[in-house]
Amino acid sequence: MTTLDDLPIRDDLRGLSPYGAPQLEVPVRLNTNENSYPVPEPVVEAIGKAVAAELRDLNRYPDRDAVALRADLAAYLGHGLTVDQVWAANGSNEIQQQLLQAFGGPGRTALGFTPAYSMHPLLALGTGTGWIPGARGVDFGLTVEDAVAQARAHRPDVVFLCSPNNPTGTALDPAVVSAVLDEVPGMVIVDEAYAEFARPGTVSALAVLPGHPRLVVTRTMSKAFGFAGGRLGYLAADPAVVQAVQLVRLPYHLSALTQAAARAALAHRDALLGTVAAIMEQRDRIVAELRARGHRVADSDANFVLFEVGGDQSAAWRTLLAQGVLVRDVGLPGWLRVTAGTPAETDAFLAAMEKLS
Amino acid sequence: MTTLDDLPIRDDLRGLSPYGAPQLEVPVRLNTNENSYPVPEPVVEAIGKAVAAELRDLNRYPDRDAVALRADLAAYLGHGLTVDQVWAANGSNEIQQQLLQAFGGPGRTALGFTPAYSMHPLLALGTGTGWIPGARGVDFGLTVEDAVAQARAHRPDVVFLCSPNNPTGTALDPAVVSAVLDEVPGMVIVDEAYAEFARPGTVSALAVLPGHPRLVVTRTMSKAFGFAGGRLGYLAADPAVVQAVQLVRLPYHLSALTQAAARAALAHRDALLGTVAAIMEQRDRIVAELRARGHRVADSDANFVLFEVGGDQSAAWRTLLAQGVLVRDVGLPGWLRVTAGTPAETDAFLAAMEKLS
Repeated sequence: MTTLDDLPIRDDLRGLSPYGAPQLEVPVRLNTNENSYPVPEPVVEAIGKAVAAELRDLNRYPDRDAVALRADLAAYLGHGLTVDQVWAANGSNEIQQQLLQAFGGPGRTALGFTPAYSMHPLLALGTGTGWIPGARGVDFGLTVEDAVAQARAHRPDVVFLCSPNNPTGTALDPAVVSAVLDEVPGMVIVDEAYAEFARPGTVSALAVLPGHPRLVVTRTMSKAFGFAGGRLGYLAADPAVVQAVQLVRLPYHLSALTQAAARAALAHRDALLGTVAAIMEQRDRIVAELRARGHRVADSDANFVLFEVGGDQSAAWRTLLAQGVLVRDVGLPGWLRVTAGTPAETDAFLAAMEKLS
Repeated sequence: MTTLDDLPIRDDLRGLSPYGAPQLEVPVRLNTNENSYPVPEPVVEAIGKAVAAELRDLNRYPDRDAVALRADLAAYLGHGLTVDQVWAANGSNEIQQQLLQAFGGPGRTALGFTPAYSMHPLLALGTGTGWIPGARGVDFGLTVEDAVAQARAHRPDVVFLCSPNNPTGTALDPAVVSAVLDEVPGMVIVDEAYAEFARPGTVSALAVLPGHPRLVVTRTMSKAFGFAGGRLGYLAADPAVVQAVQLVRLPYHLSALTQAAARAALAHRDALLGTVAAIMEQRDRIVAELRARGHRVADSDANFVLFEVGGDQSAAWRTLLAQGVLVRDVGLPGWLRVTAGTPAETDAFLAAMEKLS
């Protein structure tokens, strides 16, 4: 039998395993930061109708530039953004891959501040971009001084920032974004996949866009919109950035079904985003309760919480799993990440946590 | 205003324009090799139902490995193929991009025999793979001797073959595939996007797969299935090749809607592929009629025909467009490509061609 090692794959891929959280069948799945609430029935109907209207003409290629969808996304984001400042793809992973293809790639480097979204280094690997694992500071924070010093030392072509950061959960001070932009000549990507869950008063990097053509803010409909299965990520940036990714995007990358479904979801944003407040409430409840029990917990502006279990986090992960609660071991010694979902899921998680001591 | 040139894009992208045929509103569009027949009503209903069943749970990520869809694709292909030998993505462009990420990339090269599918060199560019433009012979053919000599001279890591070739339309002798596999140590990709339209007796490279783990055959549902708007490409190869692309594929790259819609389309393959014979009839009619009028025409195993207009093909392209018929100028001096569609579209095209002399 032929094995992977028998094939002429790239040397830098040898020995690796595919990315992905374990897909286990358990009662309480709190490991991939999905939105626990199913799509409400009226929205199901609206998306169904929108998709059905596309089916007869599936023999034709979709709009290569997804203009109508991008206009809807711009209107949703606000901040005076227009269609030429927005680009969409099959998830923010594809958005970020396109950005690395245009601005990173062979002979170039990307800097991230770990622990952060674990796909960033993998996207760098997949696009031949050199990866520089920068570091976060005390309590997983990232100060202006820290970020600028590392940017200065490495002179990266692309910088990844995360706000709120995944897996730690805390939003980034926009002053860090501005300072890094001033320091490096390259692109600065702020991954705001969880932005809608931020605590009141949090400022999005969208506010920093005017006058900063090297800044890109990426978003997704997977989390707050509960549209993970629909795969829709997007970016906001200067129109020139959109032109740049159009040089590397695959033609017709976004299906007619995806475009129609995402537009219908955006048209019903009030119903879909209606779950955000309830999720934030559970998030705050998890933070407060775990702290009350003596755990260290990172501040969270997301739909998940990073908490310290002490010692071997993989043993704690198994203890929770044995009680039917699947959380995420992100490989951070002593820490685990849990998604905030429904009140019942929080109950189950908090009850399972009592077995840890 | 910031322009593309003001941004730190890769040097090898500077000055390029995005790929894509002109999207013009004309009565007869025969320029992108779409299937001219809309999806039949019973299939529209079946796809609609299948997609609707996914909508409530769109808050969850889709099956990362699209196992059910891949099993269906394997069953469709036949040749004894099984789910572990098939992989699917958003169009065969994404399939081929993943293959280049795994087997090409920085420091590696890919060889194609031009004129061929114009996305192959662009996919190489986008993945940092060096592109080697090989040549075709007399009448756009590719003999064993020609292919092997060029493979020997360049020692590429990846070889692209096209059967039937686009834009020329002629299927490839599988002996070329075997000979190239014997000559190079790298991967050989046979792009069979139009395979279902081949003339009787044509042999697919699928027949060459057994015992050849470095061979990959790529297919698409865009053409014969009339599913261009649904974006579904796939490959068949040794299971180790599937494992290799899983190292570079974006997690959850294929939406729940795409997977459901494609499965429903495959379940109704008889209805969808019912257009193939009618399209082949128009294809053969175009070939015969143009030859009768004295044009040189390439043999076609596809849903398009490459024909010689002599002299300046862009002037001929404009003459046809002025009569409401949009064909493709692939940049081949003296030649144009026309899609075979409905009988009425053939009528319009052949009538417009009379103005060329």
